[in-house]
Amino acid sequence: MKKFNDYRKKTDAKEIKDVGYQFVDILANYLDQIQNIDSKVVNYMSPEDAFKIYDEPMPLEGMDLKKLLKEVVDPLLSHAQNLASPSYMGHQVCHPLVLSSFAKGLSSAINQGLAIQEMSPLGTMIEKRVIRWICDAVGYSEQGDGTIVSGGTEANLTGIMVARSVKAGHDIWKEGNHQSLVGFCSARSHYSIERAFGILGLGTQNLIKIRETSDFKMDVTDLKRAIAETIEQNQKPFVVIATAGCTPVGSFDDLETIALICKKYDLWLHVDGAHGGSFVFSDKLKHLLKGIHQADSIALDPHKMMFMPLNLGTILLKNQKHFDETFKVNAPYIFHKTAANLGCLNIGERTIQCSRGFEAFKLWICLKHYGIQYFAEMMNHCVDMTKYLYDQLDESPDFETLNVPESNILCFRLIPESLRLSLPEVVDEFNFNLRNTFNRTGKAWITTTVLGGRRMLRTTIINPRTTKKHIDQMIIDLRETGEQIVN
Amino acid sequence: MKKFNDYRKKTDAKEIKDVGYQFVDILANYLDQIQNIDSKVVNYMSPEDAFKIYDEPMPLEGMDLKKLLKEVVDPLLSHAQNLASPSYMGHQVCHPLVLSSFAKGLSSAINQGLAIQEMSPLGTMIEKRVIRWICDAVGYSEQGDGTIVSGGTEANLTGIMVARSVKAGHDIWKEGNHQSLVGFCSARSHYSIERAFGILGLGTQNLIKIRETSDFKMDVTDLKRAIAETIEQNQKPFVVIATAGCTPVGSFDDLETIALICKKYDLWLHVDGAHGGSFVFSDKLKHLLKGIHQADSIALDPHKMMFMPLNLGTILLKNQKHFDETFKVNAPYIFHKTAANLGCLNIGERTIQCSRGFEAFKLWICLKHYGIQYFAEMMNHCVDMTKYLYDQLDESPDFETLNVPESNILCFRLIPESLRLSLPEVVDEFNFNLRNTFNRTGKAWITTTVLGGRRMLRTTIINPRTTKKHIDQMIIDLRETGEQIVN
Repeated sequence: MKKFNDYRKKTDAKEIKDVGYQFVDILANYLDQIQNIDSKVVNYMSPEDAFKIYDEPMPLEGMDLKKLLKEVVDPLLSHAQNLASPSYMGHQVCHPLVLSSFAKGLSSAINQGLAIQEMSPLGTMIEKRVIRWICDAVGYSEQGDGTIVSGGTEANLTGIMVARSVKAGHDIWKEGNHQSLVGFCSARSHYSIERAFGILGLGTQNLIKIRETSDFKMDVTDLKRAIAETIEQNQKPFVVIATAGCTPVGSFDDLETIALICKKYDLWLHVDGAHGGSFVFSDKLKHLLKGIHQADSIALDPHKMMFMPLNLGTILLKNQKHFDETFKVNAPYIFHKTAANLGCLNIGERTIQCSRGFEAFKLWICLKHYGIQYFAEMMNHCVDMTKYLYDQLDESPDFETLNVPESNILCFRLIPESLRLSLPEVVDEFNFNLRNTFNRTGKAWITTTVLGGRRMLRTTIINPRTTKKHIDQMIIDLRETGEQIVN
Repeated sequence: MKKFNDYRKKTDAKEIKDVGYQFVDILANYLDQIQNIDSKVVNYMSPEDAFKIYDEPMPLEGMDLKKLLKEVVDPLLSHAQNLASPSYMGHQVCHPLVLSSFAKGLSSAINQGLAIQEMSPLGTMIEKRVIRWICDAVGYSEQGDGTIVSGGTEANLTGIMVARSVKAGHDIWKEGNHQSLVGFCSARSHYSIERAFGILGLGTQNLIKIRETSDFKMDVTDLKRAIAETIEQNQKPFVVIATAGCTPVGSFDDLETIALICKKYDLWLHVDGAHGGSFVFSDKLKHLLKGIHQADSIALDPHKMMFMPLNLGTILLKNQKHFDETFKVNAPYIFHKTAANLGCLNIGERTIQCSRGFEAFKLWICLKHYGIQYFAEMMNHCVDMTKYLYDQLDESPDFETLNVPESNILCFRLIPESLRLSLPEVVDEFNFNLRNTFNRTGKAWITTTVLGGRRMLRTTIINPRTTKKHIDQMIIDLRETGEQIVN
């Protein structure tokens, strides 16, 4: 069988274009169609049925590409989770800018290796540039630097690891963990913080969850109490992890006050800004991040509020020398000296990953084409729409809102009149079922979580194409599904 | 300024196609041209000059896309590290199958989140399928499973972390590291192994480097001695990391014997097959991996010898229950129950990463189109060409070969007649300079390492388009550069 771009002979441009255009056409037609208001967010298929489509042995000879694309793309796209729909209001995964995906295709084809500068002579400079722009925006001086990572989880892991290295008081890289090092985070922090303590061998029991205020922020009084208590017990506190845009409700911790406390006790301040860190680029929203320049390390995910495809996170350090103190490398087959006056150009010396793709290209080209103000407008719009949703629900007697949204995440519950006197467990179960049933209609798509022990509905408005019209319709549809369940 | 695919209005298919075709054209024309024998592997530009191209403040408004593509793509592609050139024989980063890059563009546009099945209803099944195929090939039963990770480094980190959890004898996730847990790896193992010990808080001093045999394999006698010694010293050995295709010379450890030793001492066997693990798919090469089915965990990178773009690694476990015992998650906003009879469908419960892209798609579509035999042929060809290079150099009095290649990596030195009586340091320096000068000619591209304290030249033949003609020419050109340096 004839293979596309067969390695045993030269392939001319025409053959490559023919196939490339097919992929572009598939995507363009898909995106055109799913912008329609009546297009479903998901065309539900059970896991069992989905499994069966692909349940086959490894192909030996392969099949014709045209036939394959026809057979494959139809089920894949028609049953995909349709993030491009303006009625998608689910997890914090975005419909990426289409330009970024074209850029990702191109950058993956040239496959520049971003571990070392000699494998990515210009790619390295593009990653350094994008990181510089982000460092400038958070208010880091030239001493600051960062790297692209796979996302907030790797960024949080790296930040806490650097904190451990700086604060341990011995060569922890070589000698391992000796004593109990204690960290503090808010009760609403992302699970990756606890995971980092597990992975790093610090022990999750040494991560103390600080109480939250009624508006879902870290209670700074409780933080001070917990730190003092730890010291009294002869344990060693070393890091505070503040959250800037928490996953359940999108609230922002008071970074300025927490920075003061960290200074007093000589603790590392890591800010998990995976979700909300990007708001530094919006004049309207950056007040939420006041004091972020005082953080020793910051996680910030362009694959969330900067509308990049997975995976594109960043970890930033206020003082880049701590990267080099933390990671110690001896690998003569890969790392050699580069131009000293440009700082660290072998970015892999500073990352958990070794082989690293050219992920910076897509963000860079989008920033160059759209400009940062366009990004700010998109973020602002998502937050505005969330506030609009809040207002609509707050005025409705059958809905209960749980947080006043600071960003683009909102938790709420539907309590139909007939359930108003029911036990809390009944309302919980109703909302859990509501979410599942509602999502399967494909009319819109929301998530759920538990807050204060109670089951919540939860929306993230992360598609800038979502308008008031989509939100109004979502409320109508949700109520309708609720009525069907009750009756 | 008009923005491509402006979020404030509907974009029709035509506008998306126009831009998509431009990207395809750029790539197709580039790939067409660089297959020519006289095309340079790299058109050298100094880091300082490369830095200057991108040294500008964050764009506020952005610029016209057509103009941007014209301005940007020319320097980026003409000064990229040209992995598509058949004369690229450098690091273990491949020229990916073009089909995989088109697939990557498409999958990134639909941005299915592979942490949880509800965000990737069919994508999850495609990842599970690809992993099943690989598990079948290494000889794992249905008990085995794995996940896609960012590469060998994350795979090794995960494997060693699982080993730690299984062998620690206490709840290490919760309590942290208590005692010195000791691991063993070969002297030639990848730096990510040592890094894993640093990251996990085990301490790099607790990783014992086992002597190597004259053919660069782990000396199993020394391994037995080291384990016994550790036990005598009341330390707790827990893991042996064998290498299947080591970075410096591509040699394979004796997995069968090492598995026997691990069994005797009740140690976890992790195989770093990031480079050579893919050889399980080749009837001609899989003998190198004899015994791999006995490994408790395996790292295997499709982004190396399966010609995928960065990043696509895998971690496989012989018994998947160890994933769940290791990672402990409580995150009600994301993880809910899925179809129980299909195993773990929320793959993010088993990975260090939380947000995970749909990386499986590109590998799956290439396996479906090309079939596994085509992959095996490409691997075999790369190894054959390396043996051809070895034969040519071995017959040349001015070259010294350092390893008989088991796979597609070869170390050697050029010692021109005039240096034959020089001090070793002089020959070292000559070869180091030779590599740098030679690579800047752009005629071919090789790497360097240090073996037994001496500076080596090193090639990885990882482009299936490399033929005897390219190898012969590389030798001629290398000798010519050497003569210029000597004179």
